[in-house]
Amino acid sequence: MDLDRKIRYGMVGGGPGAFIGEVHRMAAALDGKIELVAGAFSSKPEKSRKMGRKLHLSEERVYDSYQEMAEKESELPAAERIDFVSITTPNHMHFPVAKAFIEAGIHIVCDKPMTNTIEEAEELCRLVSDHDIIFALTHNYTGYPMVKEARKMVADGKLGNLRKVVVEYPQGWLSDTNDDEIWRLDPDKAGISSAIGDIGTHAENLVEYITGQQMKELYADIHSFGEGRELEDDANMLVHYEEGLRGILYVSQISVGDENDLNIRLYGDEAALEWSQENPNYLHVKYSDGPEEIYKRGNPYLSEAAEAGNRIPPGHPEGFIEAFANIYSNVADVLAARLKGEEPDELSLDFPTVQDGARGVHFIHKAVESGKKKTWVDMKYDPPASD
Amino acid sequence: MDLDRKIRYGMVGGGPGAFIGEVHRMAAALDGKIELVAGAFSSKPEKSRKMGRKLHLSEERVYDSYQEMAEKESELPAAERIDFVSITTPNHMHFPVAKAFIEAGIHIVCDKPMTNTIEEAEELCRLVSDHDIIFALTHNYTGYPMVKEARKMVADGKLGNLRKVVVEYPQGWLSDTNDDEIWRLDPDKAGISSAIGDIGTHAENLVEYITGQQMKELYADIHSFGEGRELEDDANMLVHYEEGLRGILYVSQISVGDENDLNIRLYGDEAALEWSQENPNYLHVKYSDGPEEIYKRGNPYLSEAAEAGNRIPPGHPEGFIEAFANIYSNVADVLAARLKGEEPDELSLDFPTVQDGARGVHFIHKAVESGKKKTWVDMKYDPPASD
Amino acid sequence: MDLDRKIRYGMVGGGPGAFIGEVHRMAAALDGKIELVAGAFSSKPEKSRKMGRKLHLSEERVYDSYQEMAEKESELPAAERIDFVSITTPNHMHFPVAKAFIEAGIHIVCDKPMTNTIEEAEELCRLVSDHDIIFALTHNYTGYPMVKEARKMVADGKLGNLRKVVVEYPQGWLSDTNDDEIWRLDPDKAGISSAIGDIGTHAENLVEYITGQQMKELYADIHSFGEGRELEDDANMLVHYEEGLRGILYVSQISVGDENDLNIRLYGDEAALEWSQENPNYLHVKYSDGPEEIYKRGNPYLSEAAEAGNRIPPGHPEGFIEAFANIYSNVADVLAARLKGEEPDELSLDFPTVQDGARGVHFIHKAVESGKKKTWVDMKYDPPASD
Amino acid sequence: MDLDRKIRYGMVGGGPGAFIGEVHRMAAALDGKIELVAGAFSSKPEKSRKMGRKLHLSEERVYDSYQEMAEKESELPAAERIDFVSITTPNHMHFPVAKAFIEAGIHIVCDKPMTNTIEEAEELCRLVSDHDIIFALTHNYTGYPMVKEARKMVADGKLGNLRKVVVEYPQGWLSDTNDDEIWRLDPDKAGISSAIGDIGTHAENLVEYITGQQMKELYADIHSFGEGRELEDDANMLVHYEEGLRGILYVSQISVGDENDLNIRLYGDEAALEWSQENPNYLHVKYSDGPEEIYKRGNPYLSEAAEAGNRIPPGHPEGFIEAFANIYSNVADVLAARLKGEEPDELSLDFPTVQDGARGVHFIHKAVESGKKKTWVDMKYDPPASD
Repeated sequence: MDLDRKIRYGMVGGGPGAFIGEVHRMAAALDGKIELVAGAFSSKPEKSRKMGRKLHLSEERVYDSYQEMAEKESELPAAERIDFVSITTPNHMHFPVAKAFIEAGIHIVCDKPMTNTIEEAEELCRLVSDHDIIFALTHNYTGYPMVKEARKMVADGKLGNLRKVVVEYPQGWLSDTNDDEIWRLDPDKAGISSAIGDIGTHAENLVEYITGQQMKELYADIHSFGEGRELEDDANMLVHYEEGLRGILYVSQISVGDENDLNIRLYGDEAALEWSQENPNYLHVKYSDGPEEIYKRGNPYLSEAAEAGNRIPPGHPEGFIEAFANIYSNVADVLAARLKGEEPDELSLDFPTVQDGARGVHFIHKAVESGKKKTWVDMKYDPPASD
Repeated sequence: MDLDRKIRYGMVGGGPGAFIGEVHRMAAALDGKIELVAGAFSSKPEKSRKMGRKLHLSEERVYDSYQEMAEKESELPAAERIDFVSITTPNHMHFPVAKAFIEAGIHIVCDKPMTNTIEEAEELCRLVSDHDIIFALTHNYTGYPMVKEARKMVADGKLGNLRKVVVEYPQGWLSDTNDDEIWRLDPDKAGISSAIGDIGTHAENLVEYITGQQMKELYADIHSFGEGRELEDDANMLVHYEEGLRGILYVSQISVGDENDLNIRLYGDEAALEWSQENPNYLHVKYSDGPEEIYKRGNPYLSEAAEAGNRIPPGHPEGFIEAFANIYSNVADVLAARLKGEEPDELSLDFPTVQDGARGVHFIHKAVESGKKKTWVDMKYDPPASD
Repeated sequence: MDLDRKIRYGMVGGGPGAFIGEVHRMAAALDGKIELVAGAFSSKPEKSRKMGRKLHLSEERVYDSYQEMAEKESELPAAERIDFVSITTPNHMHFPVAKAFIEAGIHIVCDKPMTNTIEEAEELCRLVSDHDIIFALTHNYTGYPMVKEARKMVADGKLGNLRKVVVEYPQGWLSDTNDDEIWRLDPDKAGISSAIGDIGTHAENLVEYITGQQMKELYADIHSFGEGRELEDDANMLVHYEEGLRGILYVSQISVGDENDLNIRLYGDEAALEWSQENPNYLHVKYSDGPEEIYKRGNPYLSEAAEAGNRIPPGHPEGFIEAFANIYSNVADVLAARLKGEEPDELSLDFPTVQDGARGVHFIHKAVESGKKKTWVDMKYDPPASD
Repeated sequence: MDLDRKIRYGMVGGGPGAFIGEVHRMAAALDGKIELVAGAFSSKPEKSRKMGRKLHLSEERVYDSYQEMAEKESELPAAERIDFVSITTPNHMHFPVAKAFIEAGIHIVCDKPMTNTIEEAEELCRLVSDHDIIFALTHNYTGYPMVKEARKMVADGKLGNLRKVVVEYPQGWLSDTNDDEIWRLDPDKAGISSAIGDIGTHAENLVEYITGQQMKELYADIHSFGEGRELEDDANMLVHYEEGLRGILYVSQISVGDENDLNIRLYGDEAALEWSQENPNYLHVKYSDGPEEIYKRGNPYLSEAAEAGNRIPPGHPEGFIEAFANIYSNVADVLAARLKGEEPDELSLDFPTVQDGARGVHFIHKAVESGKKKTWVDMKYDPPASD
């Protein structure tokens, strides 16, 4: 049975002009399961209130600070208060905001990278566990149905033993820019990394999601092409995974003309697969002894997991927002199950966790360490677990 | 200034399992400007109520029939009643539903084809005019930003004098099917045409939208490949436009393996453009004396019209739902302007009108006539105007 | 056993600056089976001699006219004279040249369209039969391995019953040109047609080659966009084939930006195939219930026919010249077999015949007739057979 | 003025079943400038003679050994003997064969990698210089017109300062194979490397050709996935070039389903370019502030260098053999100029030299050294020059 109301959420960050906050709101709204009822959209109260009006929120649910929001929302009666909060601030605020809401007993959807330090990440793992919180990190690229199909193919052994992976994520938006306006280049906000933190973690997470394998060791060659930049805008990495898979992971923000060109090619000893984020409705599978195949979103021959992430028929392209919305939709379903006292459907648990977030933060720190020391680094890592 | 509330709408049709009603709801929800508050989702009251609960509507706003809905909603105070209704029923119901709501003073978003007869279509034109109604037809493919860019290029003369158009819309979903379950093959519901009515009108509308030219004459070769089908599932047409453009328009529902493959190639005497719905974020432009160009959604070098239909940065693919949502977003903006007593922004008027709907119905009838008589038919047509 | 010498040929046409003559020479040379030993390269003796020197021919084998060449070559001892002649002149000369060499007992490779009139075409059919001549028409597009694979798939029933075909051949080279320099626009040389004659016959031949079906009736909408042109530069045709296949065949020379964009899509009731000449190493196959497949030239999973037309491994692209060379290679093999008194290998008989040429000429005349009369025309036609 | 005869050549290697020998013969034959007149096609005399007969060579010009061929040919009168020899043997024979012919005063076309040791490579450099030999190495991928266009764009500064390169060359043919039949896996024949030697050198050469930059340092992660293989079948490399360019070069022979997928993406601070060997007639150029462009082979807007490597009009695809033939064509032109006592045309000097060969051999050895020692290696290298 469906829940008898929509899931309610509030947002921290996502004020006027913020790209990713807007994406979160569209993603949350898409399926009609979730409604936005509160927010602290900016560290500047006037900006927050302006955004609240634009979003048609009631005035008393628009807050001057995230602290006020966590406190006031937790004091509201259960029939009114938010079920979860979406954190869409710059990186350095993820941790304090998440901590405040977790301690208020409010569930979390958090943008990536999860925190700026490993210590913060691990503390979040423990807090989530202690407070029994549902926590989703928006590694949205794993929300694409054809990525879910890829994972299923690997799990089913269609590729055989995995041998080689090439995952690449070139962007060009920092090839020629006024750095002062870009918080991702400011170590105080972005942390120790620009390219690896912003997009490298997506690439790392994508490989782990599809393959189920974790990194064993890594060698990074990092560089800043932009004059005077403290943080790297380009990183080329050699990677070895625990069960023998090896290959390349590279990210770039100075690849002029590239937009958001996340691609993965994965080779086993029996077949290979290839997926491109900019053309996400297709999954290519290649063999040594037969024609290449193109699997297409929305078709009945796909797996249950791909079908669960699908909204409209084949040939009607779904995109970035729809994939993003799959995280929200799953979180809503898990929350609804909990509110109803039921076990969540297995497929609805398919979203990135606080542990995935900690693994991402660990990845950033180790990759930058490798780049600076010019040595291989040990990537084995077990973040504090949930149970 | 923004309106101080969301635009409210109700839906007729779109009950459990209906694909297009779900698309309308996602499209309406996407931008956070519009909320669903009422519905008559099925001709079967129990089904309608079930859908109402699933959508978390209040019980008293879920109706047993569209007549009841039109009547009751129009009696609600202005601060509560729906601003517009979305009509997502099978074709034969578009007319009576639209008529009922127009006469109740409620604005309309209506699926295509607009009606099953030319007489109904023309009556809707007059009703819309008489009641001063905002009416949008969901020829959603014109909602794609790169289609808007194409129109701008043509209007700016980038292609020179238009010479040749090839617009094609092959689908394969009726290549092998149990016809009994498909209302689009039932003349009582679908009207006199299957392929031309369902997808031919999109193709016809797309050409007129991009080129600004209207058909002068047409020759159709129509056929039913499916055994025992009364309505055509394939149609190949020769078309001449008023200002010298000529070419091919074809549609098919038996093109096995094709999904929703609407493509247009348009040639002028100076340049050509090419756009594919299944890969909608790109627009190709070709010249006789320079490299082919690929224009990509979201980039600052695009026109204001393309930018107005854009939500997220380049490389983050937008799809079918986003294009569909552009019609809803524009309708919401025009409604908000009227509610505020302002003139709507020019760009927000960019959605298909009741006259476009009448042109589409006329096209269907003339194309089928040509196919049956095996003659060229005169396509010149002026539907009753708004003023 | 291989023949103990190369096959010898001469060329008529193909003087300085002629594109297609050069292609014939490269195609003939590619496989090392054939050598050029004679020529009448131009109607101007000085130009012919100049080309002979450039090609390092001995002076006495370079002739002032095709008549001289036919006469002198036929008088040479068998161990010296040419085995066949390649005719690469403008269209109007194909017939007299072919006739002269056939009557001299010399085999023929002839460019298309075969002749300018049906009467000439039929006389060639009879001459070929009477003189027991090997005659190949260079419908080179059927030389591509993946076209051969397509034919095999259809013959094997992989597509089921054929329903729909869309074959298109847009070019842009006449969109903006000085017509005076273009012999294809001059009725005295090109005959009654420009676009249909030059490229329409390729499209017509390609469909017949792949499907094994022949046209039953046709309706053509033809037009000249270029000012003052006598011959059509654009033609859109509706076509019905004898066994139920129907669809569209269109050609254009004013599709600005298009280069040589011959494409075919063919739909059966079980599967569809798609092939593009500009990307010829791939053949796409689509199904209603499984992933699209891409077959790639050079792979062991392809048919014997595709393999026979293949030279180098997959991923090493073959192109236009290689496909063209497959006609020459097969002609050489058939000639070698005859010289050795053996039966030719079945696969080596895979090249277009004088009857295919007559069918093409018939197609041109009937298509132009349809375009002028604006009626369907009966396409059934049996050229004089070889028996 | 043209030379009054064809250039004559002989071949060492290229016996029955050898893929690359056949490619050399087709490439040499394509343009009608060169004729094959001699050969030592196999180390087994009977096989050599069999191939000679198949190629219709006169018996006395088919030799039992390359030594015999070098000796006998050099004793023939100038009007008969070969102008150059093509060496298409397994790697280990390149050096002794080249040495023998150079010392006989015969010019050389040699397959890559040039030799198995750096010492041999350097000795060849000296021998070529001492004997005033024309020496071409068949890095055939630089023969593609659109690669030449790419080089021109870089030289003209269209990309600005070069920043990043990603060059990749995955193949799948060794993913599942009987190693015993593959000489490239046998260190006695292939030398110290499989993947790097066979295809890595092409990638290395391609970057240097297009950019004009040379490697400064390199880090290689190499691996053998095939059980029991002594030589690597996969190598992922980090590369730094002398003038600031940096990036990734990777090769693989176990990338199942990939055929011959050499791709390069090159980013400057103003524009980027992208080229794929499997679709070689196109060159993509990307900008931060305008549409992507696709340059297409054969068009008049291309550079003189691209035009010089072009045979047929746009849209008529050229492929691997045509690119290969461009090396032969240039060698023939340079030889013809020398025979006529003229300076060669600048564009005809565009083929890989013996120094490029030495650079390739050095690259192989240093890359393998890096892979084994797991350290960066210094790549600066100046082979003995021609002066």
